[in-house]
Amino acid sequence: MKRIGIADTTFARYDMARAAIREIKKHASVEIVRYTVPGVKDLPVAAKRLIEEHKCDIVIALGMPGAAPIDKVCAHEASTGLIMAQLMTNRHIIEVFVHEDEAGDERTLARLAEKRAAEHALNAVRLLFRPEELTRMAGTGQRQGFEDAGPLEGGGGTH
Amino acid sequence: MKRIGIADTTFARYDMARAAIREIKKHASVEIVRYTVPGVKDLPVAAKRLIEEHKCDIVIALGMPGAAPIDKVCAHEASTGLIMAQLMTNRHIIEVFVHEDEAGDERTLARLAEKRAAEHALNAVRLLFRPEELTRMAGTGQRQGFEDAGPLEGGGGTH
Amino acid sequence: MKRIGIADTTFARYDMARAAIREIKKHASVEIVRYTVPGVKDLPVAAKRLIEEHKCDIVIALGMPGAAPIDKVCAHEASTGLIMAQLMTNRHIIEVFVHEDEAGDERTLARLAEKRAAEHALNAVRLLFRPEELTRMAGTGQRQGFEDAGPLEGGGGTH
Amino acid sequence: MKRIGIADTTFARYDMARAAIREIKKHASVEIVRYTVPGVKDLPVAAKRLIEEHKCDIVIALGMPGAAPIDKVCAHEASTGLIMAQLMTNRHIIEVFVHEDEAGDERTLARLAEKRAAEHALNAVRLLFRPEELTRMAGTGQRQGFEDAGPLEGGGGTH
Amino acid sequence: MKRIGIADTTFARYDMARAAIREIKKHASVEIVRYTVPGVKDLPVAAKRLIEEHKCDIVIALGMPGAAPIDKVCAHEASTGLIMAQLMTNRHIIEVFVHEDEAGDERTLARLAEKRAAEHALNAVRLLFRPEELTRMAGTGQRQGFEDAGPLEGGGGTH
Repeated sequence: MKRIGIADTTFARYDMARAAIREIKKHASVEIVRYTVPGVKDLPVAAKRLIEEHKCDIVIALGMPGAAPIDKVCAHEASTGLIMAQLMTNRHIIEVFVHEDEAGDERTLARLAEKRAAEHALNAVRLLFRPEELTRMAGTGQRQGFEDAGPLEGGGGTH
Repeated sequence: MKRIGIADTTFARYDMARAAIREIKKHASVEIVRYTVPGVKDLPVAAKRLIEEHKCDIVIALGMPGAAPIDKVCAHEASTGLIMAQLMTNRHIIEVFVHEDEAGDERTLARLAEKRAAEHALNAVRLLFRPEELTRMAGTGQRQGFEDAGPLEGGGGTH
Repeated sequence: MKRIGIADTTFARYDMARAAIREIKKHASVEIVRYTVPGVKDLPVAAKRLIEEHKCDIVIALGMPGAAPIDKVCAHEASTGLIMAQLMTNRHIIEVFVHEDEAGDERTLARLAEKRAAEHALNAVRLLFRPEELTRMAGTGQRQGFEDAGPLEGGGGTH
Repeated sequence: MKRIGIADTTFARYDMARAAIREIKKHASVEIVRYTVPGVKDLPVAAKRLIEEHKCDIVIALGMPGAAPIDKVCAHEASTGLIMAQLMTNRHIIEVFVHEDEAGDERTLARLAEKRAAEHALNAVRLLFRPEELTRMAGTGQRQGFEDAGPLEGGGGTH
Repeated sequence: MKRIGIADTTFARYDMARAAIREIKKHASVEIVRYTVPGVKDLPVAAKRLIEEHKCDIVIALGMPGAAPIDKVCAHEASTGLIMAQLMTNRHIIEVFVHEDEAGDERTLARLAEKRAAEHALNAVRLLFRPEELTRMAGTGQRQGFEDAGPLEGGGGTH
């Protein structure tokens, strides 16, 4: 049975992992391994260990960086590390970050976090089991958590 | 037979892969392997897997980063990862990014995406089969998707 | 017996290591190895040596970057290196940086440094001995050194 | 016989490779291998292949980044990759970048490109054959393409 | 006998290596290997070669980045490379950079370069022979080249 790793943080203000796990269970029968760390900069090594020590086939890395400039820098460092971890393992680590300043109030931010986590969890399932679905959606302006942007006007679009 | 990998995204709003594949087929007889991921930050590991697992000799990585500051950061992280993936595999990965703010309207952006994908696909074919063509064009101000800048005035220029 | 490495600097203006070591001893029986370097950019290799040469199971990296723009760049470089060191060793290195401009006066800064070092020392103990505690706190807006942000209003929150 | 690799781009608007090769031939008897790629971000892997596959002892990487902010980011990514390529091979890769906004008109830019390429080509020859020449010039404010800054006033300076 | 590597540049406007070597000789009996390169971006591979090919136990990397924005970027790239080189070798490389805009006139800049090089040379000696001295100075606000900042007021400070 395939294994999906879920790496998340105590810094985040929403339990994105729960949203991701619920969505995964709707779409696939897999083992789930969860690994919680303090903040986003701890995610890269957690994700790598989920792959190498816990034998996960793919990882979803969930985080909620703050709104201050230093938080943006932390998120950038974490993202760079997550990409490096993927290159070192040849496995996907789907980064799902929700920035605290992406929404004006807490309720909207919570809904965004829920939706983005769920939609990226589905992306992880597709990468693992149904990659051809992603290819059918290539170039169609998919967005996670927000309404899709859609394909460009005048861009053709019939595959 | 040589293999060219095409890595693209569902985030992009134009099917740049189709444009690239069409151009490749005009110029060379190769096998093409396509690998679609959610966004540009997923491209580095996809490109590396195309090289190491799908045995591609070269990869074209297509993406269309958004116009917001966070999108610029994502593109930078993706580019850094694509360069690292090349260094780890000793294979070229031609990055073809079209930024959503490079054109004022959707139709122009679509044409830019089409043209840049096609021109860089030709570059990939040259790197693989006719590297001497690139050397003949060295220092001549080639641009992909826009009009070429041309060689500097007063710069000599006869090889 | 498990070993915790403590990497710290002579640049810092507060003995954060003492605070971290005191907290660790309250919660766990471990061997502690301390390694002091000049500044934060020397921390990545110190942390890696603590893991590889001194056989530490986890490392706490303590630093106090200055307030000037160049200090922010140094902190960013150090953080990037600490993440890389983790990926190369598959071990956690908990970064505990206190920026000199995080507080308006020296007394407050000292208290912040003390508290953040202690709270992150506890995080290191949890990662090593009681990871399930961190999972119980996932998504609850924990902050180290400051009051916790708490979970988002309207975000649900019962596990 | 020693081999010097020359990596350059079709994006550049001046044939810097010709200037570099001419200068090398004045100073040393070596084999030269040239490798042209589309843009500066393709240089790191080209330089690494020149070292590992074409057995070059040193590489000169020539590029001419544009003046737009995105071009500055590309140059930064390329430079980071060139440093990484050096660390992976233990060989020097002399980066020779001329930014399009370093001169006010095309003629001056062409002369700058010519001069910087030539002066750095000489540096490559020194690194390979006469490293003691560089040590004699240490701390003397050498600049490539522009007038040297010279040693600091009041800095002593007799070796 | 231990070996200390000194990597420096022809770009710098002060012979910082001389200051560093003089200080080392006051404090320790070691072999010194000097390696001069054109600019700070050439330092990472020079430092790595000093460690791997010249068998140095530690390296001091001396540079004097210019005051322009592009020089700041170069310094950042060099620093990132120096940290990576340390992680690849498990050896310290003490970075000693003096930015041309750190002082208002050339004489002051020269004195700063002299002093910082000497003080960091002593740090290198301590890391190699007397690491316990650094631990005694931990958290005491040491600065190299400028007056020490000292420990925070109200921060305690008796070890």
